[in-house]
Amino acid sequence: MSDNNIIITIGRETGSGGREIGRMLASRLGIDYYDRELIQVAAKNSGLCEEVLESYDERPTSSFLYSLVMDGGTFGSNLPINHKVFLAQFDAIRHIADKGSCVIVGRCADYALSEYTNKLSVFITGTMEAKALSISKRNQLSIDKAKDFVMKSDKKRANYYNFYTGRQWGHAKTYDLCVNSSNLGYENTVDLIISCLNMKNSR
Amino acid sequence: MSDNNIIITIGRETGSGGREIGRMLASRLGIDYYDRELIQVAAKNSGLCEEVLESYDERPTSSFLYSLVMDGGTFGSNLPINHKVFLAQFDAIRHIADKGSCVIVGRCADYALSEYTNKLSVFITGTMEAKALSISKRNQLSIDKAKDFVMKSDKKRANYYNFYTGRQWGHAKTYDLCVNSSNLGYENTVDLIISCLNMKNSR
Repeated sequence: MSDNNIIITIGRETGSGGREIGRMLASRLGIDYYDRELIQVAAKNSGLCEEVLESYDERPTSSFLYSLVMDGGTFGSNLPINHKVFLAQFDAIRHIADKGSCVIVGRCADYALSEYTNKLSVFITGTMEAKALSISKRNQLSIDKAKDFVMKSDKKRANYYNFYTGRQWGHAKTYDLCVNSSNLGYENTVDLIISCLNMKNSR
Repeated sequence: MSDNNIIITIGRETGSGGREIGRMLASRLGIDYYDRELIQVAAKNSGLCEEVLESYDERPTSSFLYSLVMDGGTFGSNLPINHKVFLAQFDAIRHIADKGSCVIVGRCADYALSEYTNKLSVFITGTMEAKALSISKRNQLSIDKAKDFVMKSDKKRANYYNFYTGRQWGHAKTYDLCVNSSNLGYENTVDLIISCLNMKNSR
């Protein structure tokens, strides 16, 4: 772990622009960006295939208890596949953060890097109107269906995060900084995160 | 309601420095500051005495259901005293926000000013270590007792806020901006809030 690396983790509500903001942030700071790119690193390091990592990516499975029973509680080589995917991503996140400065979106990155004091953990929210509009455009859905999509997707993200980390997804106390991107716009949100990063690093 | 007023509401975890940050913010912006000062306004406008307002200030009462029964569900002049206090503060907050620029700490001010588009709602968090240290000094308590105080006080604040607003106290989605003051320090937190305010107002 190098304390000189700049590491920013971004949690985000669906449709809040977390991914775009993360990409803009990485570009402004001239550092690497990881979102789905993380899956390739996890696949390379763990030996799990990308398709499996993709299909379990940030998704809680209803078969978790069943998997535990099937595993006989050994948590060994028979570890349920969803746990293997989480651990592969967990390792990949630490590998990436050790390698150099980066922005990592989602995947409990703030938890995986809990003891990294050089990390800024950010959470992006937005108004339902703005989030639904964004998802409606991206996924070609009506506004009502987009709202439904946002709520279901966020419920999955919260379940996944809370289960694996024991923390509260989207709760202010979980992060260094939380910003509503609908009120500020993406550019301003990036500026505010960089200000906060500079303040934290200058202490 | 004047759109030219600057209005900042501050929710805060116990010991996170929300009050000090609010005061510094008001001083920097040259605008009024309201915390306990709000009680005097509420007393003057409602006719309730300051002692009653003080004793029910931000405190959920266990006698709420009993009060409802005693009231016979009329919600009229026999309104339970805790509701009367909430409504007196609610009216006082709007009266203050209509009068001029201000910083208001606690008391569901963000909810009372929901439709005020010129408002920035902020929530201040902190690490348990920093919060306990602050409360330990302020209330002359051991660190363990200060931690216990912080947890119980925040539980009361959350119950009070969630009951009256139907929103989630301390959840990122409830606010425009949430900042961990332990990581940045109070001065930097004030700077960050002012940056965010300027960004929001320039849109």
